Amino acid sequence: MTYTRELSCLRCAAVYPDPSLELVGRGCPACESGGVPSNVLPVYDLAGLGALPVADGEPGLFRYRSLLPLAADTPAVSLAEGSTPVVDLPAVAERLGVASVVVKDETRNPTWSYKDRLASVAVTKAVELGIDTVVVASTGNHGAAIAAYAARAGLRCVVLTVASVPSTMKTLMQAYGASVVALPEPRQRWTLMRQLVEKFGWLAMSGHADPPVGSNPYGVDGYKTIAYELVTQLAAPPDVVVVPTAYADGLVGIARGFADLVALGVLERSPRMVAAEPFGPLASAMASGSEVAGPVPYEPSVAFSTASPVGTYQGLSALRSTDGAAVAVPSDEVILAAQRELAASAGLYQEAASATAWPALAGQGSLGPAESVVVIGTSTGLKDVGATAATLPEVPVIEPTADALLAAIGS
Amino acid sequence: MTYTRELSCLRCAAVYPDPSLELVGRGCPACESGGVPSNVLPVYDLAGLGALPVADGEPGLFRYRSLLPLAADTPAVSLAEGSTPVVDLPAVAERLGVASVVVKDETRNPTWSYKDRLASVAVTKAVELGIDTVVVASTGNHGAAIAAYAARAGLRCVVLTVASVPSTMKTLMQAYGASVVALPEPRQRWTLMRQLVEKFGWLAMSGHADPPVGSNPYGVDGYKTIAYELVTQLAAPPDVVVVPTAYADGLVGIARGFADLVALGVLERSPRMVAAEPFGPLASAMASGSEVAGPVPYEPSVAFSTASPVGTYQGLSALRSTDGAAVAVPSDEVILAAQRELAASAGLYQEAASATAWPALAGQGSLGPAESVVVIGTSTGLKDVGATAATLPEVPVIEPTADALLAAIGS
Repeated sequence: MTYTRELSCLRCAAVYPDPSLELVGRGCPACESGGVPSNVLPVYDLAGLGALPVADGEPGLFRYRSLLPLAADTPAVSLAEGSTPVVDLPAVAERLGVASVVVKDETRNPTWSYKDRLASVAVTKAVELGIDTVVVASTGNHGAAIAAYAARAGLRCVVLTVASVPSTMKTLMQAYGASVVALPEPRQRWTLMRQLVEKFGWLAMSGHADPPVGSNPYGVDGYKTIAYELVTQLAAPPDVVVVPTAYADGLVGIARGFADLVALGVLERSPRMVAAEPFGPLASAMASGSEVAGPVPYEPSVAFSTASPVGTYQGLSALRSTDGAAVAVPSDEVILAAQRELAASAGLYQEAASATAWPALAGQGSLGPAESVVVIGTSTGLKDVGATAATLPEVPVIEPTADALLAAIGS
Repeated sequence: MTYTRELSCLRCAAVYPDPSLELVGRGCPACESGGVPSNVLPVYDLAGLGALPVADGEPGLFRYRSLLPLAADTPAVSLAEGSTPVVDLPAVAERLGVASVVVKDETRNPTWSYKDRLASVAVTKAVELGIDTVVVASTGNHGAAIAAYAARAGLRCVVLTVASVPSTMKTLMQAYGASVVALPEPRQRWTLMRQLVEKFGWLAMSGHADPPVGSNPYGVDGYKTIAYELVTQLAAPPDVVVVPTAYADGLVGIARGFADLVALGVLERSPRMVAAEPFGPLASAMASGSEVAGPVPYEPSVAFSTASPVGTYQGLSALRSTDGAAVAVPSDEVILAAQRELAASAGLYQEAASATAWPALAGQGSLGPAESVVVIGTSTGLKDVGATAATLPEVPVIEPTADALLAAIGS
């Protein structure tokens, strides 16, 4: 085992034993008291490992289970997540003047988003700890992933959402059998979740700190497997990895996976992590040197999965430690145009939040001609298809003749 | 090369050279004149091959390209389709009294349906033939898959649909850049397609015979790769494969893949193919011994992707040659209950047409206790999420207290 059964604060390095269930989703009490809430994340001892260990008999991302925060004998709760393909975009690479651009197509997961990596590990941890109910605050991908894995494990799943939750997301979470309730105000989800965790011993699958610290620390490390897969899939290690980001669980987990690979001697250095965000709380804190990301001004955004006015300490930490950057992409028009461009030119239809990666990449400004870029395609466009529909024409009804057809398609 | 560059009629065994573009989507002219239209499908020479040949450097399902109807030097149009996982359902196996039941989760394809296997091969063939425009009649998955691959290849895609096309499907096809038009009557799509094929030399990606023969023959053989993957993935070869079916392109392709494996000596015998269909034209013809499947009575169905009153000769041929069966599943209530059951018990949310597989399997009645069953999960529930939504409760808005939550979730 390489997991030390400890959680460590990213900011003050305080170490807590696993399980410390009251810290899951809350983070380090000392840093919270000091006004800079920070997540606590699993600690590993990689000494003596000279390569990436792979357990071939394990399902899905549990093939990397020795680098996940689990006991060796906990049965994996898996829906065959991970092992997602990369799709090469040579025309985009040429336009940006870089060596290569690939999409890591995370829509190819069990619930069609990369949150399945978090959910598989966090729900497996819930089983390991003997917990019967998991609770998550979500407006979509995160809640759907937790609900699916809870169904697979036979656990009860409670989702705290908001009344404005998109209909597709609400249905998806309920279809997996989750109990879904809405709170009048978004931040009430966090106060209620903390009550539920403290009163009933339910396990938090997302954060309940305010300001936020990020999600369930076990789940964050599920994203490490993206880095492991990338070094196996790509001809050359990536120089830049772009991640659509709000509380930065995905970005942090991926960066931690690359850090593992450096520690294991598989890579010489970590790629620069780039956060694409609708409003820019991370970008603002990166510019000012602050330890606190936001709040910044915001408004409704088509990129609802990442539309947060606040970021997290864990996100800033990962950006700073990798010489990375955050880029705000505030316009719905720009986001939807990027979504459409990728679908119509490359055949990849990603959700609007995922599409923020493209203008962020174009605006990032520090790409070298020999560099290789990975963009994380976080979730399918089917989850917010209505936003795309509003930008498209009606389907014309035509007479069944070749002339009528040519006229209709403008040819 | 194992592809002989010939197409052969499934019914009369007449052989035609490749390309015979006028036969694509139309089938054998001799059998059409005789009143039993039949598809023409590619011919291979497997002599001298003693195992399943794999080209490891090729993307997606093109790793099996020596068993696909392509020239050796045609560049693959790939979005990293195929290599979809199987998910084990031990509780379902126990309930049915069989050794194992797995879902082949085809929602994990680039456009989240198994039609990507057809589209990747058919669009690659269009590139091989130097064709600039592809045309497809579709209300959803098929059109979306063709549109995505046409986008990837830089070909123009024209989709002929109906005014009642579900909004999600319409948006998805348009997002990929296809020109989408609706015809007043569904069968007008076929007469118009035949005009477009004959007049402009566009390549048909679906059928335009009436009664139908099935789809583009090159595309049908894309489904062969499901069989190849299954024998690699499963501990034991499957005894029964259940496929949600209308014109049976998928069922036929999968059966042809298993027939290849028998010819190669990889398998001793083909599994029994079971077609799940909303109205039962194949079931009716199987019972009567007819060569023509339907029309049978029909009405609107939640399983719109397979809701056809007619089947095809190719479907009957595959069922008869494998000692298979067809099962009609006429009730929306039964279908939606099966969809919900799979999602809430196993974490797999499939489209309604795909969910017809479960009542078909339960009603199939000839399963042995040592048998292993594969169910093809053809497309994601996100594509017809509205039908699920109608069966689910509203999300209650509650006060942020633990008591209010427990009351709302009935606990």
